[in-house]
Amino acid sequence: MVRGHHFRPEGGKQMKSLFQQDLKVANVGLQGFADNIAAAGSQVSHLSWAPPAGADAALGWKLACLVGDARIEEANRIAYERYLAAQPRLVDLVLAKDAIAGLAQGERRILHSGPPIAWADMCGPQQGAITGAILYEGWADSLDAAEKMAASGKVALEPCHHHGAVGPMAGIISPSMPVWVVENADRGNRAYCNLNEGLGKVLRFGANSTEVIERLRWLGGEFFTTMQVAVRGLSDANLKPLMAQALHMGDELHNRNAAASALLFKRFTMALLASKVDSAAIQRALAFVAGNDHFFLNISMAACKSMTDAAHGVPGSSMVTVMARNGVNFGIRLSGTGDQWFQASANPVDGLYFPGYTVEDAAADLGDSAITETNGLGGFAMAASPAIVQFVGGTPADATANSRRMLSITLGSNPAFTLPPLNFGGTPAGIDARLVADSGVLPIINTGIAHRKAGVGQIGAGITTAPMACFNEAIAALAAELDAIAAGKGSAA
Amino acid sequence: MVRGHHFRPEGGKQMKSLFQQDLKVANVGLQGFADNIAAAGSQVSHLSWAPPAGADAALGWKLACLVGDARIEEANRIAYERYLAAQPRLVDLVLAKDAIAGLAQGERRILHSGPPIAWADMCGPQQGAITGAILYEGWADSLDAAEKMAASGKVALEPCHHHGAVGPMAGIISPSMPVWVVENADRGNRAYCNLNEGLGKVLRFGANSTEVIERLRWLGGEFFTTMQVAVRGLSDANLKPLMAQALHMGDELHNRNAAASALLFKRFTMALLASKVDSAAIQRALAFVAGNDHFFLNISMAACKSMTDAAHGVPGSSMVTVMARNGVNFGIRLSGTGDQWFQASANPVDGLYFPGYTVEDAAADLGDSAITETNGLGGFAMAASPAIVQFVGGTPADATANSRRMLSITLGSNPAFTLPPLNFGGTPAGIDARLVADSGVLPIINTGIAHRKAGVGQIGAGITTAPMACFNEAIAALAAELDAIAAGKGSAA
Repeated sequence: MVRGHHFRPEGGKQMKSLFQQDLKVANVGLQGFADNIAAAGSQVSHLSWAPPAGADAALGWKLACLVGDARIEEANRIAYERYLAAQPRLVDLVLAKDAIAGLAQGERRILHSGPPIAWADMCGPQQGAITGAILYEGWADSLDAAEKMAASGKVALEPCHHHGAVGPMAGIISPSMPVWVVENADRGNRAYCNLNEGLGKVLRFGANSTEVIERLRWLGGEFFTTMQVAVRGLSDANLKPLMAQALHMGDELHNRNAAASALLFKRFTMALLASKVDSAAIQRALAFVAGNDHFFLNISMAACKSMTDAAHGVPGSSMVTVMARNGVNFGIRLSGTGDQWFQASANPVDGLYFPGYTVEDAAADLGDSAITETNGLGGFAMAASPAIVQFVGGTPADATANSRRMLSITLGSNPAFTLPPLNFGGTPAGIDARLVADSGVLPIINTGIAHRKAGVGQIGAGITTAPMACFNEAIAALAAELDAIAAGKGSAA
Repeated sequence: MVRGHHFRPEGGKQMKSLFQQDLKVANVGLQGFADNIAAAGSQVSHLSWAPPAGADAALGWKLACLVGDARIEEANRIAYERYLAAQPRLVDLVLAKDAIAGLAQGERRILHSGPPIAWADMCGPQQGAITGAILYEGWADSLDAAEKMAASGKVALEPCHHHGAVGPMAGIISPSMPVWVVENADRGNRAYCNLNEGLGKVLRFGANSTEVIERLRWLGGEFFTTMQVAVRGLSDANLKPLMAQALHMGDELHNRNAAASALLFKRFTMALLASKVDSAAIQRALAFVAGNDHFFLNISMAACKSMTDAAHGVPGSSMVTVMARNGVNFGIRLSGTGDQWFQASANPVDGLYFPGYTVEDAAADLGDSAITETNGLGGFAMAASPAIVQFVGGTPADATANSRRMLSITLGSNPAFTLPPLNFGGTPAGIDARLVADSGVLPIINTGIAHRKAGVGQIGAGITTAPMACFNEAIAALAAELDAIAAGKGSAA
């Protein structure tokens, strides 16, 4: 719409007329141009835009070729169907050494969150948690000795994701820790996650004081044996309907698990009451579960891992099946590029800090819990969870907008996980790395915030995004993989 | 905005010019005028409006005098403060005969929902439930004999509200039924409600088959003795924080109580595990609670009754402290008009019917459960509960709009009960009868739907409104009361 001047309408040429009109500008790209025009008193509409593929021309060309590639479309269809068909069931609670091959009796190996990283490069909370785990295992008898042992390389340190497992924050799983076992009934694949210890001074946030280790011993002892009976006695082990119900009760199943925890508490209670477990042990175990609204998080993570793993390994698929952070780097994996990690520096977390702490005190984005976002939950399902903004910041309108925006980078929405405030539309699910690289819209993640130093613990919670470079790198690798397949020498992902 | 014709601009008079323009009409009041203009092809904006006080000029004059009346403002301030200060605590579960004077041992009296009504005038489900209660009490040994007894007048039938009690749907409380005891710690007043039996074929929806009576006997026997121990052993009996938490978990605490039921289940479990009650009895009791997502409804109702009762009896107050229906009439009470009921025909319920049923099969609006709306919950708190539209109909946007609209007829919003989707604004609370009569905005109510015949049970759930005539009548009575007070002969309400 153009509004003309009415005085001195002399001259008839269009160019002259144009320059006599008030400017109305649509600015695309750099905000700075729009700011200058606005400062000069003219009207300007700014459209956020950045060139695809990080403005890398060669990568942009590859990306353009991948968009609409029939091989990728078909691969994504298969991967996404496997994801939708997944039926996670909570089938057991066992010691990690009895379920995860790399942690078998005698192995001195500890699993951590995120992509691979050497001890010396790890962030404070991850080092603190590993030190605590060495004490817990009894491989050393002081924090000092434990730290020396870790630094010496005498304990193997590997990502949870290399062993079918996930762990929140530091993500530490050592051989004597109990792990939830979630099985995808559709394809039989299993995923593991450790126990939730509560909030505050806990191992996963890097705390490792006596109180933390004592709690771990109780969790690995009486609590473990009690809850193993509870899990094995569940009359209904299906997690998908429970998670769907929790989304209708204000959870997003990453940083808010109050409803899912309460619903599972009911099932555990009925199983334990039907058991022969000593009543006092039942009381102590259920009191711990009842007092921890985040208890379900680790089960949610194992369920999510089992669902995205179902979609992994389809050659040519650009679907993201892992997003994980070690507090230094953020790493992703694609269904079609096998075991490769695509990494970039982990972002800081914008959020609500506990009194006395600021972003200066915080470790960067940390933990395998972004498996919930990879699965369409957490930040992707925030519309279901307006109350979570009291924990991670922002407004309920932001929460809804986040879910809507994520629909622009996913293969679809999951009809099993519906979001009431979006008229019961499914949660955005199946991140397509092509769409992220093309649109510049980054996956959003709700997360806890750990102090950057070992031994302190949680200092807040907030919201962050995955870094773009992971997705650009992944696209380049997928293009190479497709070229190799075309040349008859592709590695089956 | 007026758009002119550009051809034949002859003549300069404004009137002539007006008649040559396209019509743009703002219509206020009767929709029919707007429809005609729209049908003739012109643009019309319709504004819903009806004259205050049901277009009764004399009543309208009284209402105009009451709006801004300093005595009412002061009375409402006191009533509303007492409401806000209320601290409902779940203090006991006892047999009705041991708590409610009118039901003491030997009395043949049964309480029902809504305003007073004679047996012959009652709706089917209320008659069916009373018949069932007579069987349950053992006062008759067949449904036929029970019905004859009720019709003969040998059993006194009185409103729950006349005895400090409330009951959902038919609202039947007979002497041997257990009732929850909720005490307002701020003022010491107590409120009572019966037990929730679940959905479907249950006494409160008018069903009275053997299965229904057997369930009542178990609820009044083993379940009662078990849950009495649970209530008396609660480590935290405060209901207000639990209800506030449930509002953040998708409940509106009338037709959706899934979160509150799950949260209370945790407290009951911990109390029972610490008790000496037989493990099998605990199992059966908790299984019943775990299987009924509406279990908390009756506790919510008693809590609401204790909170609105706190505001009752302030001379001159126009605050509504009771809304209740008996399936024939809808009745309200004001804080400032004592024990008087103001009644009108109960509305039908627009909702979602179970397969095979329609509104033709339905009883009119029924039950004391509108005490939740009187207290700012239920329909008033629907914004917190987008998922409830799957039970009562409409869209999540309707649910939010309902909460916003109710703010126009309430004295304020309750900071203890916040609604996340409304940016954590308080739920609309303290209905002012003046505002209802003046604005024509009717209190909205979420409710279950009973079959109109005795013995059938629930056939759906939906949304309805309170009828305007109650509020007009209440305003007239309040005006008379104020006149009497001014003349020095007012009855202290």
